[in-house]
Amino acid sequence: MNVHLLTIGDEILIGQITDTNSAWMSRQLNLRGFRVTGKSSVGDTQEAIIHGLEQAVSRADVVIMTGGLGPTKDDITKKTLADYFGSEMAFHQETYDRMAAYFARIGRQLPAAASIQATQPVQALLLTNKAGSAPGMWFERDGKVFISLPGVPFEMEYLMAEEVLPRLADRFPGKPIAHRTLLTAGEGESNIASRLEAFENNLPANVKLAYLPSLGQVRLRLTATWDEALHPDAGVQLHTLLENKAAELQALLPDLVYGYDNDSLQQVVGRLLEARRLQFGTAESCTGGYIAHLITSVPGASNYFPGSIISYSYEMKTKLLGVQPQTLVRSGAVSEETVREMALGALDALGVDVALAVSGIAGPDGGTPDKPVGTVWMAVADRRRTTAEKYIFGRDRLKNIQLTATYGLNLVRKFLLA
Amino acid sequence: MNVHLLTIGDEILIGQITDTNSAWMSRQLNLRGFRVTGKSSVGDTQEAIIHGLEQAVSRADVVIMTGGLGPTKDDITKKTLADYFGSEMAFHQETYDRMAAYFARIGRQLPAAASIQATQPVQALLLTNKAGSAPGMWFERDGKVFISLPGVPFEMEYLMAEEVLPRLADRFPGKPIAHRTLLTAGEGESNIASRLEAFENNLPANVKLAYLPSLGQVRLRLTATWDEALHPDAGVQLHTLLENKAAELQALLPDLVYGYDNDSLQQVVGRLLEARRLQFGTAESCTGGYIAHLITSVPGASNYFPGSIISYSYEMKTKLLGVQPQTLVRSGAVSEETVREMALGALDALGVDVALAVSGIAGPDGGTPDKPVGTVWMAVADRRRTTAEKYIFGRDRLKNIQLTATYGLNLVRKFLLA
Repeated sequence: MNVHLLTIGDEILIGQITDTNSAWMSRQLNLRGFRVTGKSSVGDTQEAIIHGLEQAVSRADVVIMTGGLGPTKDDITKKTLADYFGSEMAFHQETYDRMAAYFARIGRQLPAAASIQATQPVQALLLTNKAGSAPGMWFERDGKVFISLPGVPFEMEYLMAEEVLPRLADRFPGKPIAHRTLLTAGEGESNIASRLEAFENNLPANVKLAYLPSLGQVRLRLTATWDEALHPDAGVQLHTLLENKAAELQALLPDLVYGYDNDSLQQVVGRLLEARRLQFGTAESCTGGYIAHLITSVPGASNYFPGSIISYSYEMKTKLLGVQPQTLVRSGAVSEETVREMALGALDALGVDVALAVSGIAGPDGGTPDKPVGTVWMAVADRRRTTAEKYIFGRDRLKNIQLTATYGLNLVRKFLLA
Repeated sequence: MNVHLLTIGDEILIGQITDTNSAWMSRQLNLRGFRVTGKSSVGDTQEAIIHGLEQAVSRADVVIMTGGLGPTKDDITKKTLADYFGSEMAFHQETYDRMAAYFARIGRQLPAAASIQATQPVQALLLTNKAGSAPGMWFERDGKVFISLPGVPFEMEYLMAEEVLPRLADRFPGKPIAHRTLLTAGEGESNIASRLEAFENNLPANVKLAYLPSLGQVRLRLTATWDEALHPDAGVQLHTLLENKAAELQALLPDLVYGYDNDSLQQVVGRLLEARRLQFGTAESCTGGYIAHLITSVPGASNYFPGSIISYSYEMKTKLLGVQPQTLVRSGAVSEETVREMALGALDALGVDVALAVSGIAGPDGGTPDKPVGTVWMAVADRRRTTAEKYIFGRDRLKNIQLTATYGLNLVRKFLLA
């Protein structure tokens, strides 16, 4: 079953917003075995929308539209769809009541346009939007399905998860499909691929391995599909097959795999700390607080994270972390000696059990022939031992900060497991 | 002149990557008066690429393709384009030499596929890619232009800026257009719009105002176009008109406008600090280092930023920032008293001239009837005065962190200007 995603709205065409919806939708559809064969974007005019719909449906079974349902633009998309499907428009009391309740709940006045917004094409199956005001719409014609959703990401995500995906699974019952993603940090795609060559060559035909790289991390997604006629045990067998293959994969990369599916490195580190009842803090120079930000982006981080010291200057390194001035003079701020002293100093200053310290040259300036831009030292310490590592990343300031955070969190993870 | 953007690659269709290229390209094209009338994405097959091209060119004068030129996929897109334009392929020595020099410079081995990559359709004008290895291609047929660029963002951006945009401006000389963007923080779109109603109603027909909202900020973009036949002074006159209108706009929103065009709030705050030779630091609870991260994402931040203290726990607030234990007991960590003491404590602990302190309930848990999730107190202090404000944001943890950072930096800006 092929899906086409159609985004409606001038704000996409003028580049005012980046379309993150369609990548999210693609992943969700893919995970359920629906294939996205095309995406397109059109402006807010009847002519453009109809042209986009016709091109989309010529090659897909399902067209999912997003956008064009906001309070100011409501009329064009909705009326265009009503015209396209030859449907009358009628006031829909339930939608109106739901909008009134929604606006009351968020403490805002019901917009004057509410009754216009509650007027819907009678031929559409309305999809109840509990995350916002405009309902989604589901039309069918000639065996094809047309779905219209609001463009606000969390409203679209709510409607996809609660209404669209379950209905599509009913409407187009497919072959069983299952996924398992292993998360790795600290090694590049090509080096991982060479370690997995034999594993990949021996995979059964119905299991695929995909490499999904991002900055300093590679996700490895195993996908198993059931190619024969429906079988009552298909789901269980696929699940077992995938678990076996995931275990094999993990055994091949014990040093790299840190988690599964929707984990993040900061969540995994947080869970390790919490399970061991350890308090953790950071002493950050070049990352300027970014590692602490990642740690505290996880709800409940206060259970294991009391705080951090960001020591951007020499003086803060000596005053707040107790780094010896002669260490800085002798070895410089970006050195093994300095990050070791920073990590040990953070244990005392923050009163924590484990500390991560990083110091590097984020760029774009500040490099020397000895220590080019991108050079980063990091250390992890507890009361018994300290471990330190050096990396040379690239020239881009923000990427260097992000890479340092990823490698630093991974160093903490390995330290905790050692 | 109408442009269609066509992205090629399965990685977009499966949602493995979010397409940020086309929003960037749209903005750049728009700024020069070229209109993007459609966008679409197709997979890596000859059939899909040709179908995408035919649909695109049916409604546009220029089709800009990105993606499909990487070392592993090179063949399909390039061969498809050669077939589509009836062009032979030939080895291109200059491209090969450039690739060899590029790989030597980044210290990697020239890939085995280099000579395949250097084989190009002879009918294409090759666009030299100094940011990577694969050149862009420019084809013309029946008065329409077809451009193929690599999908790697910085390679695409290089080729757009250095090759594509100047050539398009020559090929489709347009009417003069000019833009000026005013950046505001701390007020919502609808409240700004009501303050600007008379201004908008009195704008000349050739000047448009666009609202570009993001989290806690709204950018106001003025665009002036020259509607008549080319006139030697058109550019100068447009510039003067825009500057006058921008000055009027700023005078209407003196409390909200913080900068122009590509500024960011952290850059503006940094420039103010540097100009006044002030040292600045933060004491962060709920933002967990995110404000320091924004400050240090600006190159050269070490000139005015020595460090920060992230005090996530009660103990860190008392131990590192000198908050009185009885203040925490009496008023709680999220209170005016606490953030005032945190800001004053940061002045001493960090030895800075100005400090920002924030404390709030980021969520999703931890709210009370008194202090719901999203409640944030913030204070800015120097040696003479302290100012504090309270906000109630929403329920989303990451949005609360980002909004706190934006409002906090804006509070510092206003404090410095007061």
